[in-house]
Amino acid sequence: MKATFLYGANDVRVDQISKAEILKPTDAVIRTVLACVCGSDLWDFYSKEASEVGIAKGHEVLGVIEETGSEVKNFRVGDLVVVPFVASCGACDFCLADKQTSCRNIEFFGHGGGGACQAEFVRIPWADGTCVKLPVAEDSELLPSLLTLSDVLCTGYHAAVSADVQPGDTVVVVGDGAVGLSAVIAAKKLHAGRIILMSRHESRAALGREYGATDIVAERDEAGIAKIRELTNGDGADRVLECVGTQSAIDLSIAVTKDYGVIGRVGAAQYDNVPLNFGTIMRNIGIYGGVAPARAYIEILMPDILDGTINPGKMFDLEVGIDDISTGYKAMADRTAIKTLVRF
Amino acid sequence: MKATFLYGANDVRVDQISKAEILKPTDAVIRTVLACVCGSDLWDFYSKEASEVGIAKGHEVLGVIEETGSEVKNFRVGDLVVVPFVASCGACDFCLADKQTSCRNIEFFGHGGGGACQAEFVRIPWADGTCVKLPVAEDSELLPSLLTLSDVLCTGYHAAVSADVQPGDTVVVVGDGAVGLSAVIAAKKLHAGRIILMSRHESRAALGREYGATDIVAERDEAGIAKIRELTNGDGADRVLECVGTQSAIDLSIAVTKDYGVIGRVGAAQYDNVPLNFGTIMRNIGIYGGVAPARAYIEILMPDILDGTINPGKMFDLEVGIDDISTGYKAMADRTAIKTLVRF
Repeated sequence: MKATFLYGANDVRVDQISKAEILKPTDAVIRTVLACVCGSDLWDFYSKEASEVGIAKGHEVLGVIEETGSEVKNFRVGDLVVVPFVASCGACDFCLADKQTSCRNIEFFGHGGGGACQAEFVRIPWADGTCVKLPVAEDSELLPSLLTLSDVLCTGYHAAVSADVQPGDTVVVVGDGAVGLSAVIAAKKLHAGRIILMSRHESRAALGREYGATDIVAERDEAGIAKIRELTNGDGADRVLECVGTQSAIDLSIAVTKDYGVIGRVGAAQYDNVPLNFGTIMRNIGIYGGVAPARAYIEILMPDILDGTINPGKMFDLEVGIDDISTGYKAMADRTAIKTLVRF
Repeated sequence: MKATFLYGANDVRVDQISKAEILKPTDAVIRTVLACVCGSDLWDFYSKEASEVGIAKGHEVLGVIEETGSEVKNFRVGDLVVVPFVASCGACDFCLADKQTSCRNIEFFGHGGGGACQAEFVRIPWADGTCVKLPVAEDSELLPSLLTLSDVLCTGYHAAVSADVQPGDTVVVVGDGAVGLSAVIAAKKLHAGRIILMSRHESRAALGREYGATDIVAERDEAGIAKIRELTNGDGADRVLECVGTQSAIDLSIAVTKDYGVIGRVGAAQYDNVPLNFGTIMRNIGIYGGVAPARAYIEILMPDILDGTINPGKMFDLEVGIDDISTGYKAMADRTAIKTLVRF
């Protein structure tokens, strides 16, 4: 089968490898219908040292059950499923508490920790705990939107849940990538009164507006802080959804959070320290969040896709086949694409 | 009147100054019955450069209304009141949301920002918004406990509320000072299932047990982390109440928080950065808290004092008169006293 590997900086290749197979009785193997490229797939895209051994890529996938292990009870061959970005057992205390990213039996996809999901077939560990059946056909137009349940939409939602967005709140979304745009969708779902999206790319800002952003702030850093303060009577926002992960993004987030407000942070922190100094103590600023328990959110968010309330699939502004996936990586790295869909 | 000032390191003096008076129609003046010394009074006690101008000290006080401004409606001369550690207007949006430490008309006591509360009379700005009437007589034995409502008990409670302590939770309290001991009381009030107090002073540990601590960890730093991990099956605690404010305390707090857990931090951060790095993102660690809205909590906590459920006044293990307050500072600085009561 074809599968995607990163061999070095700017060096994504599709290799022919042996087909994914059942290794444990709790596994399933799916035939991939759709996969995509995540911002986190780009972490090492710029910098990886060249190597003869590639890193398996991809952790967002939607497909058809091809084969099940002997202990898989919830799925049959032919079921169309979406797969969250980590595999979780579904039975431990963390899973039962909907905190599946801390599952005691967690297994990873991609990032070198597991099989590539940007591949024609994918082995899914803990299939019963991990997969969620989709009530649509393989040719449904909803499939790209349903694929966003595997990570990005749930990650944006986690930012909003972590920040405890309440009806009527003023929310700032830092970051206009796919996670930021998903956070706009999430803030709207949680009935935020005002959603200020920081974006200086008109196409992203336009999609943000369509998703529910009420204000766009194109300025960055100090000018961005000043603009948000101006828009909020000097107070800052009740909730700030930090969807970038850089030091400047978290610093800005603190600066634009209203007293007693909360920052919801998601994705991968590229910083090591957060300046939660004496000033933030006086202002009662909170920070919460991390990797999203996508498995828990899929069932919350899927109905909104099925009934057309939200259309997160519109974030896919580039579509490629597996053979051209390297083009999709480069377009995201160059920020000419928000998010790349890979159709099999 | 007599009032307390800090002139330099280890140099607390009681000066004779003109009696506190009404400056605005919303002020009251109280005759002090009890005051006390706070850990935060010691911030500059060790290090202040000698000066001819002293800093007015104290922000915790309980007394009898001596005089009211023309616009004060809720209190009469002779009322016994407790005063939270900041004065708040009671009418702005922050006050109405029980976030009085961010009151738009806030005024401070002590810390150089306002009048000393370690004084025979104290001017109380925004008396209607700030003071809370006590339903006991001036000679009640409950007065020391009721004085803790001005700051320390509410601050400990804020740690627990900020960490969102839920019934059955395992809670670690970092710090065995008066705030830490108050946090134990608070965790018990919120029905924590297990309360692990970090303490290596037997008298403090004993009071902690009386207040509800189920386990005492005497080890610090790496050994303390290992001990807490051992006590929690390797998981860490659901909630960690950080009641010290040093870099090592916040670092330890992160290390002993269970995945998806929350740290409630209170008091004054002496650190500038919190290592909320990639590891904490993977573990979904949250941090919340800051200066406590004592005014909001007084009405929640006072009934427990009045009916004898809690006895926070036992934390006062040294009692002095105003003339000997310097002894009280030194005892707390040397950690021979948990907290010093000043009786007028």
